[in-house]
Amino acid sequence: MAGTGVFTEIVDGDQVYKYYADGEWKKSASGKSVSIVNPTTRKPQYKVQACTQEEVNKVMEAAKAAQKLWARTPLWKRAEHLHKAAAILKEHKAPIAECLVKEIAKPAKDAVTEVVRSGDLVSYTAEEGVRILGEGKLLVSDSFPGNERSKYCLSSKVPLGVVLAIPPFNYPVNLAVSKIAPALIAGNSLVLKPPTQGAVAALHMIQCFHLAGFPKGLISCVTGKGSEIGDFLTMHPGVNCISFTGGDTGIAISKKAGMIPLQMELGGKDACIVLEDADLDLVASNIVKGGYSYSGQRCTAVKVVLVMESVADAIVEKVKATMAKLSVGSPEDDCDITPVVSESSANFIEGLVKDAKEKGATFCQEYQREGNLIWPLLLDHVRPDMRIAWEEPFGPVLPVIRISSVEEGIHHCNASNFGLQGCVFTRDINKAILISDAMETGTVQINSAPARGPDHFPFQGLKDSGIGSQGITNSINMMTKIKSTVINLPSPSYTMG
Amino acid sequence: MAGTGVFTEIVDGDQVYKYYADGEWKKSASGKSVSIVNPTTRKPQYKVQACTQEEVNKVMEAAKAAQKLWARTPLWKRAEHLHKAAAILKEHKAPIAECLVKEIAKPAKDAVTEVVRSGDLVSYTAEEGVRILGEGKLLVSDSFPGNERSKYCLSSKVPLGVVLAIPPFNYPVNLAVSKIAPALIAGNSLVLKPPTQGAVAALHMIQCFHLAGFPKGLISCVTGKGSEIGDFLTMHPGVNCISFTGGDTGIAISKKAGMIPLQMELGGKDACIVLEDADLDLVASNIVKGGYSYSGQRCTAVKVVLVMESVADAIVEKVKATMAKLSVGSPEDDCDITPVVSESSANFIEGLVKDAKEKGATFCQEYQREGNLIWPLLLDHVRPDMRIAWEEPFGPVLPVIRISSVEEGIHHCNASNFGLQGCVFTRDINKAILISDAMETGTVQINSAPARGPDHFPFQGLKDSGIGSQGITNSINMMTKIKSTVINLPSPSYTMG
Amino acid sequence: MAGTGVFTEIVDGDQVYKYYADGEWKKSASGKSVSIVNPTTRKPQYKVQACTQEEVNKVMEAAKAAQKLWARTPLWKRAEHLHKAAAILKEHKAPIAECLVKEIAKPAKDAVTEVVRSGDLVSYTAEEGVRILGEGKLLVSDSFPGNERSKYCLSSKVPLGVVLAIPPFNYPVNLAVSKIAPALIAGNSLVLKPPTQGAVAALHMIQCFHLAGFPKGLISCVTGKGSEIGDFLTMHPGVNCISFTGGDTGIAISKKAGMIPLQMELGGKDACIVLEDADLDLVASNIVKGGYSYSGQRCTAVKVVLVMESVADAIVEKVKATMAKLSVGSPEDDCDITPVVSESSANFIEGLVKDAKEKGATFCQEYQREGNLIWPLLLDHVRPDMRIAWEEPFGPVLPVIRISSVEEGIHHCNASNFGLQGCVFTRDINKAILISDAMETGTVQINSAPARGPDHFPFQGLKDSGIGSQGITNSINMMTKIKSTVINLPSPSYTMG
Amino acid sequence: MAGTGVFTEIVDGDQVYKYYADGEWKKSASGKSVSIVNPTTRKPQYKVQACTQEEVNKVMEAAKAAQKLWARTPLWKRAEHLHKAAAILKEHKAPIAECLVKEIAKPAKDAVTEVVRSGDLVSYTAEEGVRILGEGKLLVSDSFPGNERSKYCLSSKVPLGVVLAIPPFNYPVNLAVSKIAPALIAGNSLVLKPPTQGAVAALHMIQCFHLAGFPKGLISCVTGKGSEIGDFLTMHPGVNCISFTGGDTGIAISKKAGMIPLQMELGGKDACIVLEDADLDLVASNIVKGGYSYSGQRCTAVKVVLVMESVADAIVEKVKATMAKLSVGSPEDDCDITPVVSESSANFIEGLVKDAKEKGATFCQEYQREGNLIWPLLLDHVRPDMRIAWEEPFGPVLPVIRISSVEEGIHHCNASNFGLQGCVFTRDINKAILISDAMETGTVQINSAPARGPDHFPFQGLKDSGIGSQGITNSINMMTKIKSTVINLPSPSYTMG
Repeated sequence: MAGTGVFTEIVDGDQVYKYYADGEWKKSASGKSVSIVNPTTRKPQYKVQACTQEEVNKVMEAAKAAQKLWARTPLWKRAEHLHKAAAILKEHKAPIAECLVKEIAKPAKDAVTEVVRSGDLVSYTAEEGVRILGEGKLLVSDSFPGNERSKYCLSSKVPLGVVLAIPPFNYPVNLAVSKIAPALIAGNSLVLKPPTQGAVAALHMIQCFHLAGFPKGLISCVTGKGSEIGDFLTMHPGVNCISFTGGDTGIAISKKAGMIPLQMELGGKDACIVLEDADLDLVASNIVKGGYSYSGQRCTAVKVVLVMESVADAIVEKVKATMAKLSVGSPEDDCDITPVVSESSANFIEGLVKDAKEKGATFCQEYQREGNLIWPLLLDHVRPDMRIAWEEPFGPVLPVIRISSVEEGIHHCNASNFGLQGCVFTRDINKAILISDAMETGTVQINSAPARGPDHFPFQGLKDSGIGSQGITNSINMMTKIKSTVINLPSPSYTMG
Repeated sequence: MAGTGVFTEIVDGDQVYKYYADGEWKKSASGKSVSIVNPTTRKPQYKVQACTQEEVNKVMEAAKAAQKLWARTPLWKRAEHLHKAAAILKEHKAPIAECLVKEIAKPAKDAVTEVVRSGDLVSYTAEEGVRILGEGKLLVSDSFPGNERSKYCLSSKVPLGVVLAIPPFNYPVNLAVSKIAPALIAGNSLVLKPPTQGAVAALHMIQCFHLAGFPKGLISCVTGKGSEIGDFLTMHPGVNCISFTGGDTGIAISKKAGMIPLQMELGGKDACIVLEDADLDLVASNIVKGGYSYSGQRCTAVKVVLVMESVADAIVEKVKATMAKLSVGSPEDDCDITPVVSESSANFIEGLVKDAKEKGATFCQEYQREGNLIWPLLLDHVRPDMRIAWEEPFGPVLPVIRISSVEEGIHHCNASNFGLQGCVFTRDINKAILISDAMETGTVQINSAPARGPDHFPFQGLKDSGIGSQGITNSINMMTKIKSTVINLPSPSYTMG
Repeated sequence: MAGTGVFTEIVDGDQVYKYYADGEWKKSASGKSVSIVNPTTRKPQYKVQACTQEEVNKVMEAAKAAQKLWARTPLWKRAEHLHKAAAILKEHKAPIAECLVKEIAKPAKDAVTEVVRSGDLVSYTAEEGVRILGEGKLLVSDSFPGNERSKYCLSSKVPLGVVLAIPPFNYPVNLAVSKIAPALIAGNSLVLKPPTQGAVAALHMIQCFHLAGFPKGLISCVTGKGSEIGDFLTMHPGVNCISFTGGDTGIAISKKAGMIPLQMELGGKDACIVLEDADLDLVASNIVKGGYSYSGQRCTAVKVVLVMESVADAIVEKVKATMAKLSVGSPEDDCDITPVVSESSANFIEGLVKDAKEKGATFCQEYQREGNLIWPLLLDHVRPDMRIAWEEPFGPVLPVIRISSVEEGIHHCNASNFGLQGCVFTRDINKAILISDAMETGTVQINSAPARGPDHFPFQGLKDSGIGSQGITNSINMMTKIKSTVINLPSPSYTMG
Repeated sequence: MAGTGVFTEIVDGDQVYKYYADGEWKKSASGKSVSIVNPTTRKPQYKVQACTQEEVNKVMEAAKAAQKLWARTPLWKRAEHLHKAAAILKEHKAPIAECLVKEIAKPAKDAVTEVVRSGDLVSYTAEEGVRILGEGKLLVSDSFPGNERSKYCLSSKVPLGVVLAIPPFNYPVNLAVSKIAPALIAGNSLVLKPPTQGAVAALHMIQCFHLAGFPKGLISCVTGKGSEIGDFLTMHPGVNCISFTGGDTGIAISKKAGMIPLQMELGGKDACIVLEDADLDLVASNIVKGGYSYSGQRCTAVKVVLVMESVADAIVEKVKATMAKLSVGSPEDDCDITPVVSESSANFIEGLVKDAKEKGATFCQEYQREGNLIWPLLLDHVRPDMRIAWEEPFGPVLPVIRISSVEEGIHHCNASNFGLQGCVFTRDINKAILISDAMETGTVQINSAPARGPDHFPFQGLKDSGIGSQGITNSINMMTKIKSTVINLPSPSYTMG
């Protein structure tokens, strides 16, 4: 159970979860806490420390010092620590999943899956990093016109320093470790600022890293109010890299960051283009899975369906039929559709729905809402003048736009300010490739809904969807810089064999 | 014109083409020559030197000495030489193409294309090699459990030494330079043994390299009788690599070669699998182009069609219709179908045709032959008990086997002792990938006939089709070995940045 | 001669150089011009257009449209264009070099070298880019725990869009093409904002690209006042990448850029650490070459000497002796030391010198200045409390700090806010590696002065010296993003061979 | 203890160790066994099955069938099996090490180290292979002149089929797993023919793989007489790759192998070049460690010392002093010097020693031998006319040749028919690199004795020392071939982003 067993030490006597700094669990000198509301009950569930700027300063100093030593730790030892953390994480999946259920209303089974997949990610990242950091390049000067071979350049990847990780509420564990693990294996230290919803799950996860025996100060986790420590963290001179997943805040951060390497993923409006020759059952199941899983609160959820008119009726029918099987209710009961993360989020979704209603969209189901719980809704006959054609609801409501040509679908996709993923359903190999090439998104899935994983695939948001490529390999690379040593010889030397 | 202009010096007073050694054109001390028969006229066209074993010995010595210096030449200078050779080659495409017409009855336009494409290949290889040879790896010891970072391993690719290149008659220029260029840019020296048919084209091509100013002894070209210098060359202790393209001789060479790296391409029986949903016009045009270009004398010719019964009649009709447009006659007239390379080849082809006839194959055209000229022939209803179902005619005769399932087609393809390329025609993306994955050949083309090029793609024959991967990049890699220097430090050192 | 021959069209009737947009040379609607002062004569030498914001807008629109087509141009054709531009550039080295002499007082021979080296860089970049853009990755899903092989991920590098290039005055041609060539080969369009000093050389260079026949709108070059179009350019929503080399302005740009990928190089304070066992003659010649070439106006100039006390006297004597041979005067006479770029620069240098004087530095020569011309000066016994120990003079004055241990030298190097390059002189292999590893700069040269080239080596400034790695290969990579297509199969498929 | 506990099932009632086929431990139908003599006691220690050719045939059939399924097993599952085998191997290090002590007289601690290092190697190989097999290339056609982008080439590495592994007696476990692990992770099946001395250790190791649950038939281990199954195995048509470590036998194998990819390591004569500025204590300790560890029975042992005359006396004195501390005796007592593997080996060593004696070498110690036990011996003043200057003793006797120039040392090194490793001792960075570049061996160690590990470094023997690069990464690559799928599009398509 959360906050018990090995997690006892992370919570104080007043049931406020501590923050993690200098290898210890601490109470903030502020004496204040931040409350976390359960989206299902809409009542306070947990409390976390409201850290001060001074505490952030100390964390940064410790992170800098710890990094210098960690960067001098053998790669295999760094990996060994991460493997240990992964094992501990998987062992304690139950209490961490419990937090996910309570904090972000994630369906119970999905919550467990998130933790397990996170453990796998940590281990995979460790081994990947051993290879990326362990292999540099040897370049010789005589490749370039006019040069003899008298310069040998040894170039390798070295850590950036202190990485600030800011994951979003929807995967507070998985999208934290997808930043933590690459940062650490690459020789960086790591400061985590978890989302408020999900903070307690993140703190439990951090305890697993603590138990794995990482050096003091290398990993920290601070909680608190954005107004107090938000900008203070992102503009802190001690930060050498920011890895952020979330919404528009990211754009603001990027404007203040200056010469700090950024890895940003900020949202999407992933289109699903359906051609006439598609396997319609496959399409329907992917739309439902892609559009409504975790109530649509996924970066890579299907967020607009662009279907050829001739198969639109059939698709809509099949989707409706599949949607009818979705269970709606509480995450503890492992329902498919659970309350969205907050009342403001539910209100925003409702706004999009009402706008579409007014402008003439066809509702395939009745619109239903109870508190933060919104019943799954398919909106047919959506047109480009409706907000939902372009905006990201982050909820279980999905617009269908009927198109009369493939070009129209591609055009709608490319007119978006987002460019995360997209998908196209067709059996035709030529169309599949040509359309994928034409869609201006970081990834295009052929015959499947968008998806972040498997986690070693590149994952990159274009345009307002982000900057910097993710996926395990790319994240590790992103968290390094290149250092070269050039050996200058007094006379040319060519390697013989 | 061949043997004139800048090529005057490569032929002696008796109109016998000289061999090339030590940077000079020479007459053999044997006083003997080998005659080259024009496949069209079936009369002697050219004569080349019959080199002696002693001359081969001298060539090898010179090659070894020249290589040591060449390996110490800056990469960009090596490339500069190759770019120059490429330009000269393209400039003199006409006389070289003339030889191809006379020696191997290659249609006039194709002959020019071969030379031009060869020039492009040389230039591309030069730039590719600058990068492959110019970039090694820097490895550190602490990737491996138990090690500190006290060993820095600098590993790079170094030349093998003397490369023996033996190209086949069908592309005596292109398949020579595809061995010469990677050998040279990688820092090797090169000894060319051209095929008898095609030797004079090859000697002209070598003159282009000579004019480009490569150092003496680095490139040599010896001609002569296989019985005298064949095994002597391939078993010569001075040889450090053999790159061979041809037929069964290659298997014999591989058995004698011992610890010499081999790059062998020995033939194929490329299958064309046609599914029911294929674009039948595309299939027909590809079968005709793939099966009958240069009278089927191509390694990657379509050599057996495996077509689903339901579309077989339609395909056969379309292929027949397209074949009717093929012109048959002399290479000088740029006919599509020209005489095959030799009488023995024509006899072998005829043997396959007769065997098929006796066993009940349906002839879509009448079988016709005049001297070495065989009219294009499609054999329908071929069955696995016919020799032509398995053997490689290397002529303009193509068997069609009707299959009742895709699995049957894959099985036939995989039962072959060859494994060069194959192709599958289908519109379906899933089937295309699944079938390609299932076919046990080095390359599978989806919706196109097999093809060697573009020349930077990997090109690898499996099973009896060869050993060692080709394509520009892979050939360069193949012609190098790995040399490492390990710097052992007295204490661990980690690169900081 | 500048502005004549093929360059006639780039200057208008009033001898104002035009700007380049939409494939044409144009006069600005502003009717205004910006004057360029010759650093030697301190009189106006040239005039360029003062472009308007509206003209910038049009350039951006054209750039966006041209890029979409250019990204669909075969790689080899892109390369062909660049090779042509390189050849034209080298052919016209004389008039371009003349501009460099007049605008930035670059010694005559160095000016020619800059143009020739630029041509080589363009060609090398073309071939490098063909390979980087032409080769992506194929990833399979079953690497990651829990997955079958049913997803094939095809990932490749695609252009960013419109690249804004802002080179500095000291290499207005070379540091322009090092941005232009990678941008173009990668499929981007390019907008150049040249430095005021050097603008006319840059315009001549652009004309060489124009003559090479690139499509309209793909390349543009706008000139004008920073106050009018500076921020307007860097904050323009049409820009997808900024590549900047220069000074502190870069930091300001980075703060406004938001989610635009940045490649920044902003200065350095490259240290030269001299050990007791160093080859002192080698050290002295490298200090003089590294410290005083182009009057110290180089990013990678040696900017502080950190020498072990026991060899300090000897080094100082040898450096002084070598400095005595430096000629001082006008760039037209190819003098070693020429006037610095502007009076304000000369004043800034003088400020550093006076500060050092006041605080007790030993002057190895008398301080001498005439207008912008400053005589080369070595300052011995410099201490950390002097400004010149930390600030970058960008002039021919070089401080020597005597150290009593290697650690002291490393500490001084790492205490700098810059981190471009550094060098260490020692014969000892272990010390060389250990010290290089310890120095926190992008590159460390062992036994040679810092240097940007050869241009294919990585070149990265750390800390305030920049963000994003340069060097040909890294620049091309930097100007791309990753796009993936995932083929989702209905059942697992494993490639057989 | 060997043959007990989990190893009980691998030995039959008559104390004859069984062979492993089809997932089971079996007695040979031959009814015969081969005896293994303990080098220390010179008495029979163990017996193994004398397998028949028929049994080999069955093993090959099973291997082929098992491979087809294994190649369709997800990469992460293959890795999981290998991790399990590694853990079991390390858990049972004691009984396996016991075999090494008894069969090959390996000192007790070294025997344990061999097993542990083998486990690490298996795990590292698993993770490396996941990456090598999981990542292919995506190539596009428009890199090459004349092509549009209408062909997408998906190229990946696929298994070779059945790998035959033949390790040597000196590391029967480590040099077996260094072949087994790469073969398996790459999707091959594996047939092991262990050396006679070391066979029982190998059978125990195989049992660890068996316990890890690999599919039936995927791994086999046959024992027997070379005369019966040696050539039969290496020339078996079912074999698709041979990985051999050993002596001259390898050359014979390579002559029979034909078109089978070979990985061969056949011995060496690693030179140690000592310069005047070397750290003499470091040299002496490395010569003793490098020359006498495991009584010199290591491929990468220092086999000839080439020392500059001026420091030769000092080096010889220091080496003698260090050698005096070597303990001589039985492996059970963990002595430094233990009996060599066989009487014939001891006789061969003695022959080299006597030849040197007769020709005037200076013996630094008295030559002493008891049975297979030879006391460590340093031979000074060895000259090129002595056999020991060129031949590989594989025993604790080491020649010193005094040289008067570095060139003389390099020349001696390069005149050898071997080219495995070499080392050079000098403090000078320039000399270190120049000499390493000049030495024609696969690896050159600077300031350390030759060594195979760390195991992820490339390891390649040149000339008669072998063919094919080893080291974990290179071995995996070597055990794959390249398969390409080319998607041909009806019109060009360029990926946009």
